[in-house]
Amino acid sequence: MFRAIEWISDPVPAVRLIDQTKLPISEEYLDITTVDRLTDAIQRLVVRGAPALGAAGAYGVALAMAQSEQESWEEHELQDAIERIREARPTAVNLAWGVEQVQGKISEGFNAVLEAAKKVAESDEQANRELSRLGADWILEKINKPTLRVITHCNTGALATTAWGTAFGIIRELHERQAIDIVYADETRPLLQGARLTSWELKNLGVNHKVQVDAAAASTILRGLVDVAIIGADRITANGDTVNKIGSVTLALACQRAGIPFVVAAPSSTIDLRTETGDDVFIEERSESEIHFVADIRVTPDAVVGFNPAFDVTPHDLISAIVTEIGVVEPTQTPGADVMAELSTRK
Amino acid sequence: MFRAIEWISDPVPAVRLIDQTKLPISEEYLDITTVDRLTDAIQRLVVRGAPALGAAGAYGVALAMAQSEQESWEEHELQDAIERIREARPTAVNLAWGVEQVQGKISEGFNAVLEAAKKVAESDEQANRELSRLGADWILEKINKPTLRVITHCNTGALATTAWGTAFGIIRELHERQAIDIVYADETRPLLQGARLTSWELKNLGVNHKVQVDAAAASTILRGLVDVAIIGADRITANGDTVNKIGSVTLALACQRAGIPFVVAAPSSTIDLRTETGDDVFIEERSESEIHFVADIRVTPDAVVGFNPAFDVTPHDLISAIVTEIGVVEPTQTPGADVMAELSTRK
Repeated sequence: MFRAIEWISDPVPAVRLIDQTKLPISEEYLDITTVDRLTDAIQRLVVRGAPALGAAGAYGVALAMAQSEQESWEEHELQDAIERIREARPTAVNLAWGVEQVQGKISEGFNAVLEAAKKVAESDEQANRELSRLGADWILEKINKPTLRVITHCNTGALATTAWGTAFGIIRELHERQAIDIVYADETRPLLQGARLTSWELKNLGVNHKVQVDAAAASTILRGLVDVAIIGADRITANGDTVNKIGSVTLALACQRAGIPFVVAAPSSTIDLRTETGDDVFIEERSESEIHFVADIRVTPDAVVGFNPAFDVTPHDLISAIVTEIGVVEPTQTPGADVMAELSTRK
Repeated sequence: MFRAIEWISDPVPAVRLIDQTKLPISEEYLDITTVDRLTDAIQRLVVRGAPALGAAGAYGVALAMAQSEQESWEEHELQDAIERIREARPTAVNLAWGVEQVQGKISEGFNAVLEAAKKVAESDEQANRELSRLGADWILEKINKPTLRVITHCNTGALATTAWGTAFGIIRELHERQAIDIVYADETRPLLQGARLTSWELKNLGVNHKVQVDAAAASTILRGLVDVAIIGADRITANGDTVNKIGSVTLALACQRAGIPFVVAAPSSTIDLRTETGDDVFIEERSESEIHFVADIRVTPDAVVGFNPAFDVTPHDLISAIVTEIGVVEPTQTPGADVMAELSTRK
């Protein structure tokens, strides 16, 4: 089984990445041996997904220390390199979080940092597997059917995490329990993570699925072709509002009308109690060129303006369940400004 | 101003089409002089849009008669040719409708057919202009603002009609009344009619607009960036349920939650009183290849399945107004199985 990111010691210290820009056409791995090449890979989305970027931040510190020793850097050069990793994608909070998980070990030397970084990756996998079990349990209890028709958006699988997956992890757990009928995977414009990556992972696992345009999502749900929607999260605010890839709230609106569950899956580290509601979250806009070009072909007229918000906010009252490794909350059942606070105390 | 379709007599009888597959990269016109080339153009979507296809069906009969005279066809050859036009795209009911509008004139000769075909095109333009005025009036009365922020989906402009446009026509009317702040145009996967065609028409008219991915539509509405959604229709059933390009119902769901009007615009010929509700409409699926390939580049893994419904159904209770050239109905105000029947009597 592939890993989106792992540490390689032999022949030289390196961060090994599966090149997600090449999938699904070809499965290529890059052994990254310098900080410059790592930040370039992060910016080009060779590696992506909140949990995978957490691991990239943590392993990145180890890589910087290895390069520092190799090239006899000054202390300030090492610090600069770590800062460049932290800021390779400013809005990806997990990158900085990953750096912070291991930074305190720098004084104890390279091996201590590497151990801590491996622990970050292992904890993520454990959290994913646990939330997947909890999520599958919740869904199967809620929906009284032997096999389920699922819809998902973007990629939340092993490619987006260090292993297993979040929303995708629940689908995988359901598949292992032989409880999947079909998965509808939204293609997820502009970068097509659903068509390129989720479909590739589903195919590798032998999960029956169809890829559809994002514009089909609401209709597929309203036509009664789906039993449950499962998505990931980039941030969950204190009241349960969920920030995720643009298009997610469409599924939530349609699920509410269809009367089927809409499930959010994410490790508890995604919960941000310092932010009260989704209204308080700044919505990042990515480059207009992602709208103007599809596969390097210009599709819009010259000089027109593209609008490219990367995320949307799903209000908590549209969310049937938020599944984390420490438990499940049901925002529609327990509304209020602090729906996530009680869960966080279970940590 | 360009026309999507018009009749040319000189130097030889021809149907002149703007090649919509080349837009917005280049503005090319094809002078079609044979039935085979016309059906090929229809199938390749050189010409598209329900009203434009109506004109193509009508002019197609005239073209077949001209070719018949030129090549001294037998009677059955002419009938075969007309049948091929009628069935060039089996689910495009307007093509057959256009043929039927002029077929009765065949016995009166070529000139009578051509006159009838020109009348089909002219009536469509008149209907579009009238419904655009009615729609702009309704919207400006409903929304008490000097300028409006509009969202639309797919292409309903002069390219989709014989001139002016339906939903796009209302936007154009509002623009002429200096009442447009901004238009958000959904790119409209899989064929990108919004990014390629609506944006091109808006740019030509100097209308301030932004192109966005379809997955952004719900969020743009829920964030309060939009005052009204305006879409076209391929079919409106007796109870007001509206069949339109896949993705339309997403805007309707978001508008309901945001509490802003969702407006459908179409000539009254789109009303289908013989079909009771949207549930009774067969949803056409187009080729999977439109999902797998974007601009000729394969984006999904080999051997996975694509799901490509062409249309969705917006339930009438989500529709604030249906605007036609013979009047406006408000399905949310007048629910019932026969919401469209009273309107049709005004014809």
